Amino acid sequence: MPETPDQPDRTSGLSRRRLLGVAGAGTAIGAAGFVGGLGASWASDDKPARQAAQPGSYPFHGAHQAGIVTPAQDRLHFAAFDLTSNSRDDLVALLRDWTAAAARMTAGELVGEPSRPYDAPPDDTGEAIGLPPSGLTLTFGFGPSLFRDASGADRFGIADRRPKALRRLPHFPADNLAAERSDGDLCVQACADDPQVAVHAVRNLARIAFGTAAIRWSQLGFGRTSSTSQAQQTPRNLFGFKDGTANLKAEDTEQIDRFVWVGDGDDPRAGWLTGGSYLVARRINMTIETWDRTSLREQEGIVGRDRQHGAPLSGGTEFTEPDFSVTGRGGKPLIPLDSHVRLAHPSQNKGVQILRRGYNFTDGNDRLGRLDAGLFFIAYVRDPATQYIPMQNRLSRDDAMMEYLQHTGSALFAVPPGVREGGYLGEGLFT
Amino acid sequence: MPETPDQPDRTSGLSRRRLLGVAGAGTAIGAAGFVGGLGASWASDDKPARQAAQPGSYPFHGAHQAGIVTPAQDRLHFAAFDLTSNSRDDLVALLRDWTAAAARMTAGELVGEPSRPYDAPPDDTGEAIGLPPSGLTLTFGFGPSLFRDASGADRFGIADRRPKALRRLPHFPADNLAAERSDGDLCVQACADDPQVAVHAVRNLARIAFGTAAIRWSQLGFGRTSSTSQAQQTPRNLFGFKDGTANLKAEDTEQIDRFVWVGDGDDPRAGWLTGGSYLVARRINMTIETWDRTSLREQEGIVGRDRQHGAPLSGGTEFTEPDFSVTGRGGKPLIPLDSHVRLAHPSQNKGVQILRRGYNFTDGNDRLGRLDAGLFFIAYVRDPATQYIPMQNRLSRDDAMMEYLQHTGSALFAVPPGVREGGYLGEGLFT
Repeated sequence: MPETPDQPDRTSGLSRRRLLGVAGAGTAIGAAGFVGGLGASWASDDKPARQAAQPGSYPFHGAHQAGIVTPAQDRLHFAAFDLTSNSRDDLVALLRDWTAAAARMTAGELVGEPSRPYDAPPDDTGEAIGLPPSGLTLTFGFGPSLFRDASGADRFGIADRRPKALRRLPHFPADNLAAERSDGDLCVQACADDPQVAVHAVRNLARIAFGTAAIRWSQLGFGRTSSTSQAQQTPRNLFGFKDGTANLKAEDTEQIDRFVWVGDGDDPRAGWLTGGSYLVARRINMTIETWDRTSLREQEGIVGRDRQHGAPLSGGTEFTEPDFSVTGRGGKPLIPLDSHVRLAHPSQNKGVQILRRGYNFTDGNDRLGRLDAGLFFIAYVRDPATQYIPMQNRLSRDDAMMEYLQHTGSALFAVPPGVREGGYLGEGLFT
Repeated sequence: MPETPDQPDRTSGLSRRRLLGVAGAGTAIGAAGFVGGLGASWASDDKPARQAAQPGSYPFHGAHQAGIVTPAQDRLHFAAFDLTSNSRDDLVALLRDWTAAAARMTAGELVGEPSRPYDAPPDDTGEAIGLPPSGLTLTFGFGPSLFRDASGADRFGIADRRPKALRRLPHFPADNLAAERSDGDLCVQACADDPQVAVHAVRNLARIAFGTAAIRWSQLGFGRTSSTSQAQQTPRNLFGFKDGTANLKAEDTEQIDRFVWVGDGDDPRAGWLTGGSYLVARRINMTIETWDRTSLREQEGIVGRDRQHGAPLSGGTEFTEPDFSVTGRGGKPLIPLDSHVRLAHPSQNKGVQILRRGYNFTDGNDRLGRLDAGLFFIAYVRDPATQYIPMQNRLSRDDAMMEYLQHTGSALFAVPPGVREGGYLGEGLFT
């Protein structure tokens, strides 16, 4: 669903539920070329999603959760939750309830029962009534603390099924993390082309969780910083540069299989994660005021690409492969040794790649008037231990860009596979 | 420009500047039916803006500033600034520089000089390169403290030209204001259909102000809560209700003249404000978790309208005038005496009206997991002393909705008239 209008269709006075007639039709068309039959069987959804040029919905059920290889929507509301109950039954009930609500909301329907008694609170909070599905996807994850909390307790009887790679990320050089922006037992990534639809989804999931889980931290993102489909143009981050040019794209199904989806046998004690992935979240503040006083020459040297077109400094256009061997005056490499593009490039990282899915954020300002702004980095990887941690260690230590960055939040989640009709999120972990 | 697609056109690899060829053409078309000739003369722009169905730009110059009766765009970045210099020359230079930058950015051009030396910082921070104008408007205001600061000093020699109505808003019942979210010497309201374009504008204005003024507070809004044109559908606030149904619309030019624009002779010592307005900003937190546990019956009684359609409880459809005299069982009025729609209605407020232009916001969450969310209320009035203050006093005291609201920020600004070609913002105040 690339380049769809973000403006919700407010020309209809119909309820969100009644709009579904329209949305449903669009979905059916899209789904025909997408998962090839959403019934009892659940096919692969590796393929890029529907091409419909109008706001629509993505199927909730499938082999993988939506919101990973789905073409990155424009807006984000991310929330991490902590369990407030120690009951396994409560946790499973929550996952079942979230599953039902997510299936409805991503289809553009109201949460819960449409006809509640007038003297009861409505099931749905209402602010998305009349808005189309807006490409909403809801992607859920499980944090390390779900398996064993800070005191070491196995609250839910699942500690022995913790995936080996699911542990708190290490402290990287120059990390300045805030506990209240890090970690969490559960997470949900809500992406949509209309921010009101994303906020509505998180709010209703939080409401459903009341008594079982509460939001630990949350983050809004206003502009995607990655393309996850070849059909999308490369967006810009708050340094003013195109970001994620070399990102994995949904169309590279072989690469996606290799670098994003957890494979059968990857982790014998966590077979339930097969078809899932790992979500790395990093809140990265940018000291944009300092960056803005840096020369264009220095900025481009730090990034390793030109600002206008995003072409590597070794020449060509945006999608030309960087040539790290080309040297200029005095034998210096045109793409500096400490440039971001060099240090993050697969060729410098044993060939591994990651699927980036981050968003620009701005959260007010500090007492000096500096905007609290940056990049909310999200990446999906098959194995954080080999794909993310070594690369981030190198970047945090050597990347010239680090002078303008401060990592202020961090979390890692295991993202269970998609849900089949009649199933629930993470079901394999509890059965 | 109602219902335009929000998705920026990223299909072009051209620079923002080179895109102007396209944007400029659109503007010319729109302007023809809009201000009727933008040359040496500056006609009235009371009329609703351009009808073009694609992203475009609003003229920056005109009798009134854009962003007031302009059909409310979808996204907001609002910032209040404090002067860090006491020099009148610095202040005037800032207003001149902001004027030039605002004219460029609202037309979709890069700020400053396009061809800067490679060894100098770029004039424009770059994150909007390639994005269309996105309907950006920038609306500037002057706070009471610009005329006389907290110590009583007349820093800029303009104290005797302070408009009589420009004073800090009074303390309303139940106000719980934070100083760091209130007041300010200057303000800018950036509205656009793409949040990245709005954020880019505020950031570049802050950058230009460096050394003269710094951001005091800032607020992002993700969803408009008011229609300012008959062509727009009524949006919903975070209580799930349609908001601003009875709002003034740009098409009511007589009402706009009567209730929005400061008239010639309104205030003899502040003739420079003629053609301007006053901007009331209130950050209103909603305790949505409590609201969500309230029955639909109670919610509708508090609002005075039904949730699904926004019709008054006295019957009819959304745009039916409420009939406050209709009673139901036991002789009770169908629209309760303490309902929001009754207390805010012009008939209960000596016939006065206001032009609302607010936005929904969500700024993370508190330690209990409750979303920090609500309505960033913006209203434009000709005279806050008669149009806003009495009404807010009544609402803060009697409105049943106040149980679910907390006002956490407050500011009042005088909004100078529009800028003519070759002039600068607020010029009349300094000449």
